[in-house]
Amino acid sequence: MKRLKLRYGMVGGDLSAFIGGVHRRAIAIEERAVLTAGCFSSHKNKNQECADFYNLENDRVYKDFKEMAEKESLREDKIDFVSIVTPNETHYEVAKTFLEHGIHVVCEKPLCLTREQALELEKLAKEKSLFFAVTYTYSGYAMVKQARKLVKDGYIGKVVNINAEYLQEWLIDEIGSGNESTKKLSVWRMDPKLSGISNCVGDIGTHIENTVAYVTGLKPVKVAAVLDTYGQVLDMNANMLVEFDNGAHGVFSCSQVCIGHANGLVIRVFGTEGAIEWKQEDPNYLFVTKKGQPMQIFNRGMGYINGRAALINRIPSGHPEGLMIAFANIYQAVIQAILKKENDEMISEGDLDFPNVSDGREGVNFIHAVVESNNKNSKWVEL
Amino acid sequence: MKRLKLRYGMVGGDLSAFIGGVHRRAIAIEERAVLTAGCFSSHKNKNQECADFYNLENDRVYKDFKEMAEKESLREDKIDFVSIVTPNETHYEVAKTFLEHGIHVVCEKPLCLTREQALELEKLAKEKSLFFAVTYTYSGYAMVKQARKLVKDGYIGKVVNINAEYLQEWLIDEIGSGNESTKKLSVWRMDPKLSGISNCVGDIGTHIENTVAYVTGLKPVKVAAVLDTYGQVLDMNANMLVEFDNGAHGVFSCSQVCIGHANGLVIRVFGTEGAIEWKQEDPNYLFVTKKGQPMQIFNRGMGYINGRAALINRIPSGHPEGLMIAFANIYQAVIQAILKKENDEMISEGDLDFPNVSDGREGVNFIHAVVESNNKNSKWVEL
Amino acid sequence: MKRLKLRYGMVGGDLSAFIGGVHRRAIAIEERAVLTAGCFSSHKNKNQECADFYNLENDRVYKDFKEMAEKESLREDKIDFVSIVTPNETHYEVAKTFLEHGIHVVCEKPLCLTREQALELEKLAKEKSLFFAVTYTYSGYAMVKQARKLVKDGYIGKVVNINAEYLQEWLIDEIGSGNESTKKLSVWRMDPKLSGISNCVGDIGTHIENTVAYVTGLKPVKVAAVLDTYGQVLDMNANMLVEFDNGAHGVFSCSQVCIGHANGLVIRVFGTEGAIEWKQEDPNYLFVTKKGQPMQIFNRGMGYINGRAALINRIPSGHPEGLMIAFANIYQAVIQAILKKENDEMISEGDLDFPNVSDGREGVNFIHAVVESNNKNSKWVEL
Amino acid sequence: MKRLKLRYGMVGGDLSAFIGGVHRRAIAIEERAVLTAGCFSSHKNKNQECADFYNLENDRVYKDFKEMAEKESLREDKIDFVSIVTPNETHYEVAKTFLEHGIHVVCEKPLCLTREQALELEKLAKEKSLFFAVTYTYSGYAMVKQARKLVKDGYIGKVVNINAEYLQEWLIDEIGSGNESTKKLSVWRMDPKLSGISNCVGDIGTHIENTVAYVTGLKPVKVAAVLDTYGQVLDMNANMLVEFDNGAHGVFSCSQVCIGHANGLVIRVFGTEGAIEWKQEDPNYLFVTKKGQPMQIFNRGMGYINGRAALINRIPSGHPEGLMIAFANIYQAVIQAILKKENDEMISEGDLDFPNVSDGREGVNFIHAVVESNNKNSKWVEL
Repeated sequence: MKRLKLRYGMVGGDLSAFIGGVHRRAIAIEERAVLTAGCFSSHKNKNQECADFYNLENDRVYKDFKEMAEKESLREDKIDFVSIVTPNETHYEVAKTFLEHGIHVVCEKPLCLTREQALELEKLAKEKSLFFAVTYTYSGYAMVKQARKLVKDGYIGKVVNINAEYLQEWLIDEIGSGNESTKKLSVWRMDPKLSGISNCVGDIGTHIENTVAYVTGLKPVKVAAVLDTYGQVLDMNANMLVEFDNGAHGVFSCSQVCIGHANGLVIRVFGTEGAIEWKQEDPNYLFVTKKGQPMQIFNRGMGYINGRAALINRIPSGHPEGLMIAFANIYQAVIQAILKKENDEMISEGDLDFPNVSDGREGVNFIHAVVESNNKNSKWVEL
Repeated sequence: MKRLKLRYGMVGGDLSAFIGGVHRRAIAIEERAVLTAGCFSSHKNKNQECADFYNLENDRVYKDFKEMAEKESLREDKIDFVSIVTPNETHYEVAKTFLEHGIHVVCEKPLCLTREQALELEKLAKEKSLFFAVTYTYSGYAMVKQARKLVKDGYIGKVVNINAEYLQEWLIDEIGSGNESTKKLSVWRMDPKLSGISNCVGDIGTHIENTVAYVTGLKPVKVAAVLDTYGQVLDMNANMLVEFDNGAHGVFSCSQVCIGHANGLVIRVFGTEGAIEWKQEDPNYLFVTKKGQPMQIFNRGMGYINGRAALINRIPSGHPEGLMIAFANIYQAVIQAILKKENDEMISEGDLDFPNVSDGREGVNFIHAVVESNNKNSKWVEL
Repeated sequence: MKRLKLRYGMVGGDLSAFIGGVHRRAIAIEERAVLTAGCFSSHKNKNQECADFYNLENDRVYKDFKEMAEKESLREDKIDFVSIVTPNETHYEVAKTFLEHGIHVVCEKPLCLTREQALELEKLAKEKSLFFAVTYTYSGYAMVKQARKLVKDGYIGKVVNINAEYLQEWLIDEIGSGNESTKKLSVWRMDPKLSGISNCVGDIGTHIENTVAYVTGLKPVKVAAVLDTYGQVLDMNANMLVEFDNGAHGVFSCSQVCIGHANGLVIRVFGTEGAIEWKQEDPNYLFVTKKGQPMQIFNRGMGYINGRAALINRIPSGHPEGLMIAFANIYQAVIQAILKKENDEMISEGDLDFPNVSDGREGVNFIHAVVESNNKNSKWVEL
Repeated sequence: MKRLKLRYGMVGGDLSAFIGGVHRRAIAIEERAVLTAGCFSSHKNKNQECADFYNLENDRVYKDFKEMAEKESLREDKIDFVSIVTPNETHYEVAKTFLEHGIHVVCEKPLCLTREQALELEKLAKEKSLFFAVTYTYSGYAMVKQARKLVKDGYIGKVVNINAEYLQEWLIDEIGSGNESTKKLSVWRMDPKLSGISNCVGDIGTHIENTVAYVTGLKPVKVAAVLDTYGQVLDMNANMLVEFDNGAHGVFSCSQVCIGHANGLVIRVFGTEGAIEWKQEDPNYLFVTKKGQPMQIFNRGMGYINGRAALINRIPSGHPEGLMIAFANIYQAVIQAILKKENDEMISEGDLDFPNVSDGREGVNFIHAVVESNNKNSKWVEL
């Protein structure tokens, strides 16, 4: 009998954790996967509290992720995939464990902390023929998909310049706070042990790289970067020259100290025949200019929207789709792919329209190249 | 033992219906109510298909809403509330039936077709001490709540002028199509039997009235309106002068033939000390001007947001919340109110922050006054 | 010998007066008329001071406008046209005098105070075959001309709805100030003797009517209006239903008490095939939507701009043209028309692309109809 | 007797030349200088035609700039200043000649082609105690002056990041056109003999540097740049990392191949207490965010505008001031300074509020450092 819904488990994400809740709601919007097992917290009570809220069966509430991977993998009604929403430094080990036990993986970004870990996870997923999604959220927006289609269809010609930025302001008070402990200073992002070699580039710069690659199909081949720590251990601001694999240049800027910007991811791609601009804070629109013509504002859901952007459209034009829908769209494809595999159906290209472990590996690679360039007085560093 | 979740039923909204899906997803985001019973369609197969998708128990799939109300009301584990997502002309009878059986109601707008029906439903809900929400979605947006708070707190002084509009374009091809049957012409909105005395004012004009009342606390006391049918039976365009209960005047405009506008609800309120503007298609921002000062752009989720807008904030500033979240926020309050009642807890003002049956009745009243004014050569008609 | 430049005179507009300076600078930008005679002020010293600044010959500085009209008309090197920048209530008499002496007239708006005066001036200009421009500035903007061309060319099809507004805030402190004399209260606009029967509609509402007529070619045939005086003698806020001569309806709103708006003239025209929006505070752009297509932002000076908008373009696209240029464009046509007449050249339609005495008369007519409707409890009043 | 007006001459700028007309009109708006002498073209007829249009006396129409400088310098009623609007490569020699003859200079940007020329002109102007303005237009806008004031007053704290760009599209067709002669290719900007070592950076990149320095008071101390020529001789696209003299970093981008951008100069300055954004294509507004507060939109001409921005305000708020006014504001200061000197009055700091020869020299220096960095594989190069 054809399966209509999947079972999934979660590692991390107790009721007080933010991102776990986002994942669960995104899946709930998608409606085709049911939370069935979990190891939500290393605190026993928090773990149980979360399990109770979702009516999990007792024997599917686990004290650690290893036990969960092992026991689930032995069940006939095992979970189909696991969502990993733990801190960055644990991603590698958790993901590896579930892959080894034959369970598909959805993992928060960044994929892991080192290039070696990334290569290993990529290899393992391939060997095991398992789906592995990395939740670079922004490629889930309909208008980002429309941008990708326009570029692919040649609408803007050959790409000649790219200008992208991701500006936030939430760490502004860390500038000059030196060794004094402030509330925000204590967040794990500023701690290399938890966050890896970069704070700002690792957290948001990597989204620029991923979204630009998704939209344009172009990969950075070298970067020349200057990072600012403003007296802290890790970077909070980065400006980067980038060269892409088609020879074009561009600029990436990311910052957590740019007052006036809450979550300002902006992608601008300039080609020989046209140009495209997309702003995450105004995500239902795409600003498209064809050479010699007026700028056009493409609006999600309208009749002229096509390809994946039309297929994954959920509500009528003019009714804003926000971040939760972008997130649900990532899961839409992953769930569709797994369901089709389970039902022995043909998997289409669209079903694979989610950021995967290779995208995750490229993100880790990008972060390392940027930091290396900064350490070499902003010399070009190849990826 | 304290209940964490409610059980709900749905009338209408099979898997092919749009608005039913929106309601279910909004509730899913809210996470505290589980779909338990339903009568999703008069087509037996469609009804069952939907029930199967949500794993409903067989004896809680009903062939009609009367059976559903009766049988559910007799169960110990009966549904706590019903969501009514059927066509407009059936709202009255369905809602009345569930109220009579002691079940809380959430109903799509407009509440019903006539003033008499509206008064009866309002009276019945009161007598039965039941919650009755009408899903005027737009009051669910965080920044609409912030606007309401600013007005209430006196931030803009005494209101002296209101300018609000709700412009769409989707019926543009009906202009001049005369008696010819086009695809859109056949939609029920253009049919008085299904839609009531008005198409455009009834569908979207009523949202203007509701959102303005929510933000300002002001009610229209008279209207002078001119409607355009462009050769069809019902209105597709309406321009209205409005007088409010504080003596201020204003303009409401709604249209389904304004090219370039997908779902353009815009509310502007001008006071003696400041002014406020909110745009549904850009819902995370609020444009606020204090007399003699620069315009400010309030951004959802920032530290200076307060009151309900802060409480119902779900994701960090700069990560857009769209229509689904606004919808979830309506349910958030309704579910909270019912849960507290079930758990014998104190119900706060915030728990009642949803559009209710009285708002629904005022909406019906407004529609009738507008149509009457148009029929009287745009003379002022009192509400 | 072909004349390259005209001579002009000015009535009103001493060095301390604002609008006189705007006229002189607009003419200076146009470069083809030289200030040659004047009666700038009834204060002798102010009059002379202004004359000296512009190096006027002594015998062409006049103590009053009658002397000026008489003496100039007798000179061989008489002025070709006069610019009238005196207060509203004097326009009629001054304009009439110069017409009677055979001198072309450029007059500030509104043309005059009564319908009878307007008809008389229109008749007189016609009899004397003199050019008579009324400086409704906004039709001078390039993108307003582009809007007009698009409508004329059928780009938006048949007009079905018009929404236009002109919102200001500068009189906000007059609300409720009662009889107390405030600085702004003493301005002449609030005095019926100086301003005529309306303040707000007369000052800015008339610009809406004129700009809409210019863009669409449509004239209001009836209005239903409600004015707000907020305790003062004259209106400071007006909301109007309008019916146009093609049967379409629309809304006009003008206000001097809408906080957040400095000079917000916005024109939106909706047709069966497209729509157009223009905003005076962002004047170099035109927002154009063709049915079923993305909104386009037309940008002044680009290759796709055509007709008069292209011809009167002065600086490259992206370099903003502001109000002074719009003003200069009005004079551009008037000066061109007079020069061609002087040089016995063929006058083209474009040379007459300035608001003329008939437009001025229609403006006066509109103001009176609006006030009359308000006095009749907002009944429809025909123009 | 106190002089009210100056006499000025012009080199270059015949009636068919664009920028000469802009200078003349800017001065005409300013009203306090009269065109009195000129050498508008090396073509005798064009020279005379222009002189005739402005009614120049015959003996003040010169065949070359040397004759003009010599003869004017000997007259009692000599010109007070000269406006140089010739091609770039001639600026140095013309400016030097007039300085040597004791005449104040206003010169188009860039000042000259080499660092040595720039230093010499700076030295000469100082020795001769002559005013020397370089028309970096954008510092003439009121809201750029407001930005400068806010930064100076500490409103945004210490500057920590700067992001500025100047994007155009007009050379897009030169990409890949190789050696083929196209219409635009033949423009002098693409010819090193006429344009110097850079096209794009020299033409518009230098405006970024100048405007940022004007707003922030910060100077670049090193740059790491990558230029794109797309197969042509000179650059048409440039991305630059910049370090400023307060230690902050930033990015400058300029381009003539970015479709969708006509003249997009955008300056964003981020500080520890606030941030500022200004856009040349929307020049009457300034986007200002104070830490923890909503973004504010400052509007030219409002009561809260102060300092120079208030003083040079010409027309009321909401009535757009465009490029011509910015240009006039540059001349406003130069003319005021010269007039005061002539009248032996005290020259204030505001009278010197124009870009001068030292700003011009820094522009030339910046261009050379950027090109040098690009030639050194984008290494940091010190200015």
